[in-house]
Amino acid sequence: MNVAERAQVRRIPKRAAYDAETIHSILDAGFLAHVGFCVNGQPFVIPTLYGRNAGRLYLHGSTASRMVRELETGVPACVTVTLVDGLVLARSAFHHSMNYRSVVAFGTARKIEDPEAKIQALRIISEHLIQGRWKDVRGPYEKELKATSVLEFSIEDASAKVRTGPPVDEEEDYALEVWAGVLPLAITPREPIADPRLAPGVDVPEYVQRFGSEPSPPKG
Amino acid sequence: MNVAERAQVRRIPKRAAYDAETIHSILDAGFLAHVGFCVNGQPFVIPTLYGRNAGRLYLHGSTASRMVRELETGVPACVTVTLVDGLVLARSAFHHSMNYRSVVAFGTARKIEDPEAKIQALRIISEHLIQGRWKDVRGPYEKELKATSVLEFSIEDASAKVRTGPPVDEEEDYALEVWAGVLPLAITPREPIADPRLAPGVDVPEYVQRFGSEPSPPKG
Repeated sequence: MNVAERAQVRRIPKRAAYDAETIHSILDAGFLAHVGFCVNGQPFVIPTLYGRNAGRLYLHGSTASRMVRELETGVPACVTVTLVDGLVLARSAFHHSMNYRSVVAFGTARKIEDPEAKIQALRIISEHLIQGRWKDVRGPYEKELKATSVLEFSIEDASAKVRTGPPVDEEEDYALEVWAGVLPLAITPREPIADPRLAPGVDVPEYVQRFGSEPSPPKG
Repeated sequence: MNVAERAQVRRIPKRAAYDAETIHSILDAGFLAHVGFCVNGQPFVIPTLYGRNAGRLYLHGSTASRMVRELETGVPACVTVTLVDGLVLARSAFHHSMNYRSVVAFGTARKIEDPEAKIQALRIISEHLIQGRWKDVRGPYEKELKATSVLEFSIEDASAKVRTGPPVDEEEDYALEVWAGVLPLAITPREPIADPRLAPGVDVPEYVQRFGSEPSPPKG
């Protein structure tokens, strides 16, 4: 396999993966990306939502946003998605770690100009975040579409990094009477809070109630 | 207030804050940062843990890691921390949003060379992640310290951005029979999983059991 130098994982390469299936499964399990770009050597890292179709990610933002205005010029960009699955508590400070799944994707973005293609990309972002929502809501007005930039980010190369399982300690430390193990973590929903101005008699939709209930992250 | 241009929030400035108290409170509530740096115009965004002392963040990594090797040269860096507090489900696609707290911090890092200062910084990172852990574990051997680079990132300027509360819809959309409101989200722990090789009779420490139970994120 020929991995581009920028996507080569240098540290603990056994945790790295470069196949599309692993990379896409992590991208599909997350919803928040951190997007990096450089302006005269100054890096910016901006959190944003996204959606995916094959090897393309869709991002959106106000036409006034710095991220949108820089990315749409086609500068090199980096989109990173990180899922925290747990704290790995070892017997030694040095071997503490996290269980996580992350993707670092490199590529460039282009602005989607066609209104129908924009709406389609916005639908992909919306359904990626909360499947089932799009059909329920009032679609974008023309003026709303004009105020929104939608970007298609083509993944040119990417790497995934995954850690699972218990801590790995030095052999001599296993006898220590120190609790060791994994504290699993996950982003979980609480009870939905209805808008104070909700129209009477409207129930919480099923797709809101089951948000995050599947798929489950890897154990341990 | 004189805000550096790179830290100026352009989009929805009413959600922005530049005061140290707001910025530090968000940094203290998170534990995962996304660190950005540029190599010949190519941005990299790498997830990492951190700790804070006043206006300085501590980062660590293997001496082999690309992030460490680039940052320790003193290049401009961007450290972003994002806490997701909820999905904001509006009646229109356009007004969907998130409740979140984020900090985008700009500055430069330097490598900490002094072994005592390195240990102190590692303790800050450890206690930031899970308070109470450091005193229980075997401290770093000299060879472990040598394999670890610890960086002090000085925040030169930063901005926070916060959204709370219910969706804000167009007046004419409030009559729609569409469920609207907030689905609160939080990173929550599940039951700790003991290491299969745990020494007999060692209980789960109190600081593991109460992880994440305080402070609570803003409501709504």
